[in-house]
Amino acid sequence: MQVIVDFCLVPMGVGVSVSRHVAACQTIIEEAGLVHRMHAYGTNIEGPWDEVFAVVKRCHEAVHAMGAPRINTTLKVGTRTDREQSMDDKVASVEDLLRH
Amino acid sequence: MQVIVDFCLVPMGVGVSVSRHVAACQTIIEEAGLVHRMHAYGTNIEGPWDEVFAVVKRCHEAVHAMGAPRINTTLKVGTRTDREQSMDDKVASVEDLLRH
Amino acid sequence: MQVIVDFCLVPMGVGVSVSRHVAACQTIIEEAGLVHRMHAYGTNIEGPWDEVFAVVKRCHEAVHAMGAPRINTTLKVGTRTDREQSMDDKVASVEDLLRH
Amino acid sequence: MQVIVDFCLVPMGVGVSVSRHVAACQTIIEEAGLVHRMHAYGTNIEGPWDEVFAVVKRCHEAVHAMGAPRINTTLKVGTRTDREQSMDDKVASVEDLLRH
Repeated sequence: MQVIVDFCLVPMGVGVSVSRHVAACQTIIEEAGLVHRMHAYGTNIEGPWDEVFAVVKRCHEAVHAMGAPRINTTLKVGTRTDREQSMDDKVASVEDLLRH
Repeated sequence: MQVIVDFCLVPMGVGVSVSRHVAACQTIIEEAGLVHRMHAYGTNIEGPWDEVFAVVKRCHEAVHAMGAPRINTTLKVGTRTDREQSMDDKVASVEDLLRH
Repeated sequence: MQVIVDFCLVPMGVGVSVSRHVAACQTIIEEAGLVHRMHAYGTNIEGPWDEVFAVVKRCHEAVHAMGAPRINTTLKVGTRTDREQSMDDKVASVEDLLRH
Repeated sequence: MQVIVDFCLVPMGVGVSVSRHVAACQTIIEEAGLVHRMHAYGTNIEGPWDEVFAVVKRCHEAVHAMGAPRINTTLKVGTRTDREQSMDDKVASVEDLLRH
């Protein structure tokens, strides 16, 4: 089962700046070899279900290991069985409509 | 790693009523033996990381098997390393403050 | 337009415990006279759109005034035009199915 | 109060394809003159609190008017009082760390 998630991890108890923790997660996602794209409020990740969720778990483990005592993550999780659809397809289908 | 999640699964392409699909997920969560509590916008689930996420995956598989071609799930995922905290603890700590 | 939201406010830069800030929000919601119910990962609130969102804004203002430099809120927002449905109706329709 | 939101509207009861509804929302956001950027799982929008939430409300009204009987939106809402930060700043601060 392929999945597209939107992953937004917020460490708590580490002060106001969390970019160091987010950067560590980006590296973990990158090393997993999954298609991904960061935006201002999270990162879209696309891949097989088990691989994507293994990455999410590794991010929690890594951010705790960096000293964050508490983590609050938000995930959107999309699956479909009617057809294959990539992250790029989703954006493209809306942009197509906007052009016409 | 223990986790408390808030799990809200929305099947798409099945019409306006989704209570049948949500009920199927409740049964799956119940059968997994995890502590859980349903509210008007999802279900809190508490347990070991791998067990909780296995349940989320089973729910996606079951709802697709019921005929939903597309699923859009929202998950909040909380972990902490500073101390143990249950779902009930979280609510109780706020209610304590409100009483004083 | 009636709305049912699930509201989860997370203050950042205030340390690991946020129950004081959540309790302040509960008081604001209570004083607004809106139907609401807290769970382990947020609060369901039901009411007219403008009143509900005014409460969300007041909570952000109050939590900043308590000293939180940064807030990260997650909201689920449900509206429907086909029929009236309360928070209690949503839970009841699933529980009915589970009993049969 | 400036806000950065991540806005993801899901119409229900309209079948599996929702790109027509998402495109209508993009047009509403565009016409409001707010800074925004679409990704595969929503749209980041930046601006004054009241203007941003007025746009969210207009999107719900417009998508209902297009025939969707039910809407399920997810919003992330970020405010901060310690300093100004744009959507671009958020992404840039992580990318800076990744380059070094």
